[in-house]
Amino acid sequence: MFGSILETLRAQRPLVHNITNYVTANDCANIVLACGASPIMADDPQEAAQITAGCRGLNLNLGTLSQPRLTAMLRSGQQANAQGIPIVLDPVGVGASDFRMEAAQALLRQVRFTAIRGNLSEIKALYLGCGSGGGVDTADAIQEDALEDSIALAKAMSQQTGAVTALTGVIDIVTDGCRTYCIRNGHPMMSTVTGAGCQLTALMAAFLAAAPDKPLDAAADAVCAMGLAGELAARRLTPLDGNASYRNYLIDAVFNLTPQQLQEGANYEMR
Amino acid sequence: MFGSILETLRAQRPLVHNITNYVTANDCANIVLACGASPIMADDPQEAAQITAGCRGLNLNLGTLSQPRLTAMLRSGQQANAQGIPIVLDPVGVGASDFRMEAAQALLRQVRFTAIRGNLSEIKALYLGCGSGGGVDTADAIQEDALEDSIALAKAMSQQTGAVTALTGVIDIVTDGCRTYCIRNGHPMMSTVTGAGCQLTALMAAFLAAAPDKPLDAAADAVCAMGLAGELAARRLTPLDGNASYRNYLIDAVFNLTPQQLQEGANYEMR
Amino acid sequence: MFGSILETLRAQRPLVHNITNYVTANDCANIVLACGASPIMADDPQEAAQITAGCRGLNLNLGTLSQPRLTAMLRSGQQANAQGIPIVLDPVGVGASDFRMEAAQALLRQVRFTAIRGNLSEIKALYLGCGSGGGVDTADAIQEDALEDSIALAKAMSQQTGAVTALTGVIDIVTDGCRTYCIRNGHPMMSTVTGAGCQLTALMAAFLAAAPDKPLDAAADAVCAMGLAGELAARRLTPLDGNASYRNYLIDAVFNLTPQQLQEGANYEMR
Repeated sequence: MFGSILETLRAQRPLVHNITNYVTANDCANIVLACGASPIMADDPQEAAQITAGCRGLNLNLGTLSQPRLTAMLRSGQQANAQGIPIVLDPVGVGASDFRMEAAQALLRQVRFTAIRGNLSEIKALYLGCGSGGGVDTADAIQEDALEDSIALAKAMSQQTGAVTALTGVIDIVTDGCRTYCIRNGHPMMSTVTGAGCQLTALMAAFLAAAPDKPLDAAADAVCAMGLAGELAARRLTPLDGNASYRNYLIDAVFNLTPQQLQEGANYEMR
Repeated sequence: MFGSILETLRAQRPLVHNITNYVTANDCANIVLACGASPIMADDPQEAAQITAGCRGLNLNLGTLSQPRLTAMLRSGQQANAQGIPIVLDPVGVGASDFRMEAAQALLRQVRFTAIRGNLSEIKALYLGCGSGGGVDTADAIQEDALEDSIALAKAMSQQTGAVTALTGVIDIVTDGCRTYCIRNGHPMMSTVTGAGCQLTALMAAFLAAAPDKPLDAAADAVCAMGLAGELAARRLTPLDGNASYRNYLIDAVFNLTPQQLQEGANYEMR
Repeated sequence: MFGSILETLRAQRPLVHNITNYVTANDCANIVLACGASPIMADDPQEAAQITAGCRGLNLNLGTLSQPRLTAMLRSGQQANAQGIPIVLDPVGVGASDFRMEAAQALLRQVRFTAIRGNLSEIKALYLGCGSGGGVDTADAIQEDALEDSIALAKAMSQQTGAVTALTGVIDIVTDGCRTYCIRNGHPMMSTVTGAGCQLTALMAAFLAAAPDKPLDAAADAVCAMGLAGELAARRLTPLDGNASYRNYLIDAVFNLTPQQLQEGANYEMR
């Protein structure tokens, strides 16, 4: 399975609409191009739904949220639902403010998501409806000993929303509430790049656009692809390189990733 | 001719005001610095015209358009017209929504542009006043067989607006409605970098600022410079590099481009 | 002294709230991560103060200022004051428009800043309450012959505001009005990277977060760290590199900077 969605993606080059924060928008656009899809960014409420209507995937990201951008997200989300276009939600820092939490809850009430991607604190906050603050670039430690609890949380999130949940960290969990992927690709350097999570979510939107009928597999495939790119990027690091060079290597690695590499490098088990 | 405007630019270091999308603003600022000019970004309607008044070039870009940013563009455009400051328009994705189309038309009615730069679908949509959607990073194929049609379109756009039209793609067409440059610089990797078009438009604003009395030559010079930088950047690519490294090489190449290299490397014919 | 704050910073990983322009937000986030802190960006008036409340440092930057972002800055600034959280102001282009000048003055009236960082034209405009335009990436020449005047200006700025003033250029001056550091780290390439100043201010917010009781030393430490990173980055430059690669090397150098390197490489004298 792994690899074939990437092949489809590169053949079809789907257009993906991103309503996302201005901090990582450039990296998100470049990673969407790197995987073979085509990005469009548009966040004015006057045009958001119309832009979505011409796309095959939608990525909604709560970073640097503003009231107009939230309005745009609601309109685009409803448009995507009406046309059956897959949508992924990235609840960036949802536990850090009431504004983001209320925005996320409004989105979950008014839009059916295909997938939700966040780290442990974000998914926990979103599931419980309240948060405990914390940064947005934190690499939450989903370690072996807490793995079962994290799987249970991800499954509950999926059952509550009907969306595939991708709970990412040291180990990544991708579940639709029934079938669950535990993915062990990735590299610690990924947590030193701002918006590595945003980039993964954008990549996931592209994979979902290429396989809208297989959301669990598409989401898991994107997580493996990003993690594998993180591993490949780390191999290029020289002693003077840091997080800035690593950021470039990461996107480069997605650009050069072949379906066969993904097939062979995907490191996961089903639970 | 080619090369002398770059020399002037580096000697004068003109200040260029950019009202542009947040996805590629950083790359636009860095490419303006790379060519020797100085960028300033400001998009609040309260300050836009005053910022423009202190600059020697203005770059208006419709990516991630918002209502306030459009108001700022109208004010800055009128200020620039009042002072004779050259203005370039980048109608990013103008065919993708009514909002962008109406914004572009309002700008064309209320502001006299020195130059307009877009890809084939953007220029076609702008000329016809209606679009057919499509992404913003598409490399439209202006191939040999459709070259005459594209030249006719670009000339008509210039005759309609009085602006130099730069219709860029595999072959680039730069015309003032009478004289026409067909430029064959560039590299396919350029279409894998988000905002390569935005960067070119920002570069064009800098070239126009250095040669406001020769808009056709300045626009063509900027197109050659960008294309040549794309060629030079491609020569640096190693097997693990992808679009992220290429983005850096592209800006680096503009930084290191000499007037003599531009003079010798410009690959164009007059039509 | 130099080096120990960096050590604390890396041990504590403080969360730093940045309300900053969209042109350089990504670089600011990555440099905050590079030094060992954790960035969060949020600029909606509805959430800004709540985000600040959960952080240990606050960075307010006037680039691409908008009315909503200014409101957010005022709220976050007052929240930070109420909790004793250190705040740094970057008055980007404050002399370029009345809007930015009035915004800066409102901030200075309603918020007590821990530090203010700007170039010569910005600090002069802020001190005098009026400006003479100019770009935002200008490397003002604080040369030896004007050094005494610049020190007097920086001291007066500190005495007026109670904040540490970091007046940066070829020579950097960091003063609390009594003690003054003159710092001679840095490299000319830094002025070719957009937002190198914004990055320094973000870095300063992180250093202040790690040493809120020693604002003068923390600010001077950050200036040395950035300058030293600029020197280390310049050593990596190869003939084809330009400002884009240099930007990456700069952040990489902060990432790899050790407390000992900083201790040994800091090039300053007290005045």
